[in-house]
Amino acid sequence: MRIHIVNPNSSAGMTEQIGLVAARYASAGTTLDVTSATGAPSSIEGYTDEAVSVPLMLEEIRAAEARGADAHVIACFDDPGIAAAREVAEKPVIGICEASVRVALLLSSRFSVVTTLPRSIPIIEDLVEAYGAGRRCRRVRSIDMPVLAVEENPEQTAQLLAAEIALARREDGAEAIVLGCAGMTDLCNRLSAETGVLVIDGVTAAVRLAEAVVGMGYRTSKLGAYAAPLAKAGGFGQAVA
Amino acid sequence: MRIHIVNPNSSAGMTEQIGLVAARYASAGTTLDVTSATGAPSSIEGYTDEAVSVPLMLEEIRAAEARGADAHVIACFDDPGIAAAREVAEKPVIGICEASVRVALLLSSRFSVVTTLPRSIPIIEDLVEAYGAGRRCRRVRSIDMPVLAVEENPEQTAQLLAAEIALARREDGAEAIVLGCAGMTDLCNRLSAETGVLVIDGVTAAVRLAEAVVGMGYRTSKLGAYAAPLAKAGGFGQAVA
Amino acid sequence: MRIHIVNPNSSAGMTEQIGLVAARYASAGTTLDVTSATGAPSSIEGYTDEAVSVPLMLEEIRAAEARGADAHVIACFDDPGIAAAREVAEKPVIGICEASVRVALLLSSRFSVVTTLPRSIPIIEDLVEAYGAGRRCRRVRSIDMPVLAVEENPEQTAQLLAAEIALARREDGAEAIVLGCAGMTDLCNRLSAETGVLVIDGVTAAVRLAEAVVGMGYRTSKLGAYAAPLAKAGGFGQAVA
Amino acid sequence: MRIHIVNPNSSAGMTEQIGLVAARYASAGTTLDVTSATGAPSSIEGYTDEAVSVPLMLEEIRAAEARGADAHVIACFDDPGIAAAREVAEKPVIGICEASVRVALLLSSRFSVVTTLPRSIPIIEDLVEAYGAGRRCRRVRSIDMPVLAVEENPEQTAQLLAAEIALARREDGAEAIVLGCAGMTDLCNRLSAETGVLVIDGVTAAVRLAEAVVGMGYRTSKLGAYAAPLAKAGGFGQAVA
Amino acid sequence: MRIHIVNPNSSAGMTEQIGLVAARYASAGTTLDVTSATGAPSSIEGYTDEAVSVPLMLEEIRAAEARGADAHVIACFDDPGIAAAREVAEKPVIGICEASVRVALLLSSRFSVVTTLPRSIPIIEDLVEAYGAGRRCRRVRSIDMPVLAVEENPEQTAQLLAAEIALARREDGAEAIVLGCAGMTDLCNRLSAETGVLVIDGVTAAVRLAEAVVGMGYRTSKLGAYAAPLAKAGGFGQAVA
Amino acid sequence: MRIHIVNPNSSAGMTEQIGLVAARYASAGTTLDVTSATGAPSSIEGYTDEAVSVPLMLEEIRAAEARGADAHVIACFDDPGIAAAREVAEKPVIGICEASVRVALLLSSRFSVVTTLPRSIPIIEDLVEAYGAGRRCRRVRSIDMPVLAVEENPEQTAQLLAAEIALARREDGAEAIVLGCAGMTDLCNRLSAETGVLVIDGVTAAVRLAEAVVGMGYRTSKLGAYAAPLAKAGGFGQAVA
Repeated sequence: MRIHIVNPNSSAGMTEQIGLVAARYASAGTTLDVTSATGAPSSIEGYTDEAVSVPLMLEEIRAAEARGADAHVIACFDDPGIAAAREVAEKPVIGICEASVRVALLLSSRFSVVTTLPRSIPIIEDLVEAYGAGRRCRRVRSIDMPVLAVEENPEQTAQLLAAEIALARREDGAEAIVLGCAGMTDLCNRLSAETGVLVIDGVTAAVRLAEAVVGMGYRTSKLGAYAAPLAKAGGFGQAVA
Repeated sequence: MRIHIVNPNSSAGMTEQIGLVAARYASAGTTLDVTSATGAPSSIEGYTDEAVSVPLMLEEIRAAEARGADAHVIACFDDPGIAAAREVAEKPVIGICEASVRVALLLSSRFSVVTTLPRSIPIIEDLVEAYGAGRRCRRVRSIDMPVLAVEENPEQTAQLLAAEIALARREDGAEAIVLGCAGMTDLCNRLSAETGVLVIDGVTAAVRLAEAVVGMGYRTSKLGAYAAPLAKAGGFGQAVA
Repeated sequence: MRIHIVNPNSSAGMTEQIGLVAARYASAGTTLDVTSATGAPSSIEGYTDEAVSVPLMLEEIRAAEARGADAHVIACFDDPGIAAAREVAEKPVIGICEASVRVALLLSSRFSVVTTLPRSIPIIEDLVEAYGAGRRCRRVRSIDMPVLAVEENPEQTAQLLAAEIALARREDGAEAIVLGCAGMTDLCNRLSAETGVLVIDGVTAAVRLAEAVVGMGYRTSKLGAYAAPLAKAGGFGQAVA
Repeated sequence: MRIHIVNPNSSAGMTEQIGLVAARYASAGTTLDVTSATGAPSSIEGYTDEAVSVPLMLEEIRAAEARGADAHVIACFDDPGIAAAREVAEKPVIGICEASVRVALLLSSRFSVVTTLPRSIPIIEDLVEAYGAGRRCRRVRSIDMPVLAVEENPEQTAQLLAAEIALARREDGAEAIVLGCAGMTDLCNRLSAETGVLVIDGVTAAVRLAEAVVGMGYRTSKLGAYAAPLAKAGGFGQAVA
Repeated sequence: MRIHIVNPNSSAGMTEQIGLVAARYASAGTTLDVTSATGAPSSIEGYTDEAVSVPLMLEEIRAAEARGADAHVIACFDDPGIAAAREVAEKPVIGICEASVRVALLLSSRFSVVTTLPRSIPIIEDLVEAYGAGRRCRRVRSIDMPVLAVEENPEQTAQLLAAEIALARREDGAEAIVLGCAGMTDLCNRLSAETGVLVIDGVTAAVRLAEAVVGMGYRTSKLGAYAAPLAKAGGFGQAVA
Repeated sequence: MRIHIVNPNSSAGMTEQIGLVAARYASAGTTLDVTSATGAPSSIEGYTDEAVSVPLMLEEIRAAEARGADAHVIACFDDPGIAAAREVAEKPVIGICEASVRVALLLSSRFSVVTTLPRSIPIIEDLVEAYGAGRRCRRVRSIDMPVLAVEENPEQTAQLLAAEIALARREDGAEAIVLGCAGMTDLCNRLSAETGVLVIDGVTAAVRLAEAVVGMGYRTSKLGAYAAPLAKAGGFGQAVA
C-alpha cells in the first residue's frame, strides 16, 4: 500500500518531522510518499496562507496519484483544500484535523484542542464543528506561538503545551487532547507521558486511518460534491482558453 | 494484533456471516476472536432487545480482554452498550454504526442509511445525530423486513435494498449508502456493483478502524465518562452484598 | 390512581427516602407502589451500572404493571433504560431527569444541574441535550461526592450543594437548579429556603407529572420506537430457544 | 386548587368549548376560572393578532391572580405573551403549545403537529423548536382552514384532520399528533379513536400540567428573565407619567 | 427615500438621541421620520414592557407608512414586535438588534454583545440565536445599569462599557462588540476609539441597512408568515364586533 | 464611494452582465470598479474551481484596494475565498451568497435557493448553514444546467427557474427565492414578475449592502480571524525564500 502525505506548506523541517512520525506509525507493508507544496508559504497561519498553498498542494496530489498513491494525507491542521482534493483524487483523502477529531470522538467523551496562534482558534472551531464534534469538543486553546517557532523551540513548546493541557483538564474537563498543528507531531508521546492525558496527534491518526480506508476497499464517492472537476478553460490542470 | 468482534445477539448464522466478512477484510497480521452474547435475544430490534443483550455482551468483552484482545468491535448497528463497553474495556471499542458513519463522512458529502424495520429508524437517527453527521445524513430508510428474515432471504433482501438505494439516490441526493444492519454485511459488494453507489458496511469499517486505532497506539481515555466501573455491591462482575 | 416508582439501584436507604418524598408530594387519591431492582448495583455511577440494572428494572416494571400500575417513575437521574421501559410498559413512563428538566423549562429561562460525581457530567449533559434544553441548561456541575456518600452525609452534602448553587447563580446566571441525583431528594426544600433559588427535585416532579399524564388519559404511542418488544428466543421475558 | 384558563381571543364559542374540555379533564378538587381577553381579536392568526391580544390577556392574568389563581393556562396554540405572563404572574403559567409538545415528547419518539392556516406553520415551527423538540417534531402541517371556520364546521374539520393525520402517519412516520389549535380541543378523542394514533390536545395537557406543577409546590423563578416588570411611567398597570 | 424610525418606548431623551445619530449616518438623499410610541413604557426592560409597547408601536408604523415611509426601523435592541410589524407594513422593517448582528457577522468571525440589565441577557441570547449567530456570538454581557440610567449618566456608562469591552476582548476573544441598547448609540465612536475594538451600533446599522434594502427594490414577502393581518372583529385597526 | 466587484471566474460575458446589473442598482454617488480573475476557470462549479480562482481573485482585491476601493463584492454564489479576502483587504468584503441570504432573512420567514448544477447543492447548503439560516432555508434546489449554459440560454434558463420556483412555493412553502448563481442576475426582476414570488439576486443585494456598510463607517475587524496575512516566505504577495 502506498500512502501519499503532503505538507501544504514549504517548511522542509516540518516536512521532515512529519515524515519521521509517519514512518514510525505506518504499518509494515506501507510505503510512504512524503511531499510538500513547493513555493507555498513557509507555514499556514490563516485563510490566505491556505488559499495560496491549496492549488500547489492539489498539483502534488495529482502527481502522487499518477505515481500510484492509494490514499492521500493532508498534513496541516487546517485541512486546507480537503474538499477540492477529494474532487481531484480518485483515492481517499484524509486531513489530520478530521482524522484526529474522529479518533478523539472514539476514545473520549469530551476533548479539547491546543493550537499555535489565537488567530487559528476560530478556524479550528469551525472545522471541528463541521466534523460534528459539537459540544464534545470543549474548547480550542492556543499557546500563542507561531508555527515556525514551534518547530524551532521544541522544549519551550512542550512546556507551554503541558501547561495548557493541565488547564484543559482542570477547566474544560477534557478527557483527551488533540494537538492542533502538524509541527507538534513529535511531542505527542512525551506530552501524553508527562500529563497522564491521552494526547492525539493528527499525522499518526491520519496515516493509520488512510491505511484503514484503503483496506476497506472504499473510495471517495464521485456522485455528488466530490465529482472530478469539470474540464474547462482555466480549470485545474488545463490551459487557459 | 488481536481484534475481538462480539455479536450482541445470539443468532449463530449472523455471527458466522460477520466472522466471514471480518476475515475477508482484516489485515494479514490480525487474529480475529469472534463471539456472540450467549443467551441474548436472537436479534436486536428495539431498545429492550438491546437492554437484555448488553450485560451479556459486556461479559464477552471482559473475557476477550482477558484473552488478550487489542480492541473490540460491537457488531450490531444500534451500537448497544458502547459507552458501557468503553468503561469495562481498557482497549478501544468500535461500534459498527459509528465506524460506518465516520467512514461515510470521509468519503461523501451526503449519505443515507438503509435499515431493516421502521421501528429502528428513530434509534438510528438519534445515533447518527449523536455521532455528528447532522444534515450530512440525508435520511434513514428501512426495507420493512425483520433482522432474521434478512439473513434467511438474502436474494429478496438484496432486491429490496437495491430499490431503496435507488430511491436514496434520486430523492435524497445520497452520494453513499450505509447498510444499517450487521446481517446485511455480505451483500455490500454486490449492492455497490449493481447500483453504482458507494455502499459501506459497518463490520468491514469497524474491523479496519479498530486495527487503525491499535496501530496508532491510543487507548480509551479513563479520565472521565469512560473510567472503569466503580467496585460496589451488585456492580458488574461482583457479587451482590 | 396507582403510580409505580422504581429505584433502579439496590440501596434500601435511597429507596426509602424516595418513597417518603413521593408520599409527601403525591395527590390524595394516589397509591404509590415503590420498588427497587433486586440484585442491581447499590448505586448508579456510570454507563455500566446502568446497563447492569436495566434488565432488572424492566422486570419490576412488568410486574408492577401486572399489579395494576397506571404509570411508572424511574427514580435515578440518569433515566436508565427509559426507552426500553416505554416499550415494555403499556402505561406512561417518566424519568426523574426528564421530568425535572421539563419542569425547569416551564419555570425558568436558564437553569443549572448539580450532580454527584464528575464522571456523571457528560452523561447528564447528553441527556439534558436530548431533552431539548439546549443552551437553556447553563451548566452541569458536580459536588464530587459518590452517590452513597450523599445518602450517608446529608449535612455535608447540603453544605456542598448550597455552595455549588451559589456558584451556579453567580457564574452561570442560573435562575433555577435541578438536583441531579435521586439521593438528594430530601434536601430540596431546605436548599431552596437557604439559597433563595428555585430548587427542583426529580422525584417530586416525576410523581406529579405521572399523575398528570394519567389524568389526561394518554398512553405511550405503540406505533413506532416504543412498540412492544417482539417475541423472540432470548427476548425479554422469554426462554432462550 | 384554582386554575385560571385564559382564551387570549374574544370568541365566546371557543372560550366555552375550552371551558367544557377543561372541566372534563380537571381533577376533582380543581376549581376552574375561565376568562377571555375582552376586546381582543376574535381569533389569533398571525403575529399582529397576538400582539394586540397580549396586553389584554395580561390584564386577565393579573385579575385572576388577585382572585386567588394557583396557576394560569394560556389557551391559544401560539402561546402568545407567555414570557410576559411569567413576569406578571407570581404563579406558574402554562401554554397549550408548550404543554402538548412536552407531553408528546414523553409519549412518543416522533410526532407531527396539525394546525389551521398555512401562515401559522412557521410560527409553530419556531415555537416547537424553542421548546426543544428538534427533529423529534417531524413536521407542522395545516388543513388550510381559518380558526373560526374550525369552530363553525366541526364535522368538516374532523374529516380534514383525519386525512392529515393519515398523511402524517404515512409520510412523516409520526407516532403521535399534536392538535395545533385550541378550537380543535373537542375533536381530540374522536380523532384518536378514528385514526388509531395518539392525538394530544393542548388544553387537556395544560390543565393537568398546571395542576401538577402546583402540586409540586414550585413557582416561576423571579431571579432573571421572569422577574416582575419594573415600575415605570407607561409600564404595565401604571399611569403614564 | 423616507425612513421611519420608531422608538418603541416613550423616553423623549432617547428618541432625540436616536434621531441625532440616525441623521449623522443617513445618506444625503434620505428623509428621516422619527417617532416614538406615545403612552408606551419609558424604557423597555423585559417581556412585559415589550408587550405593552408593541400595539402602540404598530400604530406608529401604520401611520408612518401612510405618510410615505419606504422602510421602518425599530429602535429598541429587543426588536419588539418585529414580526408583527412585518405583517402590518408593506415596506421593509429592520430591527436594530438584527441589523447589528448581521453587520457584526460580516465584519468579524466572533463578537460579543454588551447590554444594560442582566435580565435582558436571556432575551438577547435568544434573539441572537434566532438570527443565526450561533457560537459566533461568544457571549451577551451586561453592565448592570437600567436603561434610563444609561441615558442620564453617559460618562459612567462609557466607563462601564469600556471595562466590559476589555473583558470581552480578553475572556471571549471577541473581535467586535455590539452595543445592546439604543440608548448607547451616542457612545459608539468614542468606545471604538478608546478600546481599539470595532464597536457596532444598531441604530447606525439599521438606518443604512434600511436604505440598502429600499435601494435593492425589495419588499417583505407577503406569501406566508408576514402576510397582512386578516380583517376581523378586534383585529388591529378595527372596531370590536 | 468606490465599490470593487470581482468576478472570480474568467467569463467575460458573466462579468459584463454583473457590471450591468450592479450599475442599475448602485446608488447615484457610487463608482463601480468591476474586475475578473484573469486566468481563472471560465466558471466555478465545485471546490477545485474555487481553489484555483481564489489566489487570482485575491490579487484583484489587493489591486483594487490600492486603486482606492471602499469595499469589495465577490460575485460568485459560492463566496469563494471570502475569509481570505477579509484578511487581505482593509475594507469590508461582501459575498453575494451571504448578502442574499441575509436579505432573504430580513424579508421572509422561509426561503429556498435555486442554483445551477446538483453538485453545487451541498456546497451551498453548507454556506447557508454557516450564515445561520438554519431551517429558515427550506431547500437548495437546482435546474441541472451548467453555469455557462445559463449565460448562453437565458430564455430556457428563465423557464426552468420559473418551474423550480413554482415547486419551491408548493413543496417548500418558500416565501422568497434566492437565485444561486451570479449568471442568473439579469433574470431576477422578470422571474419576480412572472411568479409573484419575491426573488432575490445576490449581486444587487451585495452592492447595496457594501454601500451600506461603508456608509456606517465600519471596517473588518483585524483583531482575530481576519487579521492581515503574516509576512513570510511564499506568503501572499511575497517572493519565495
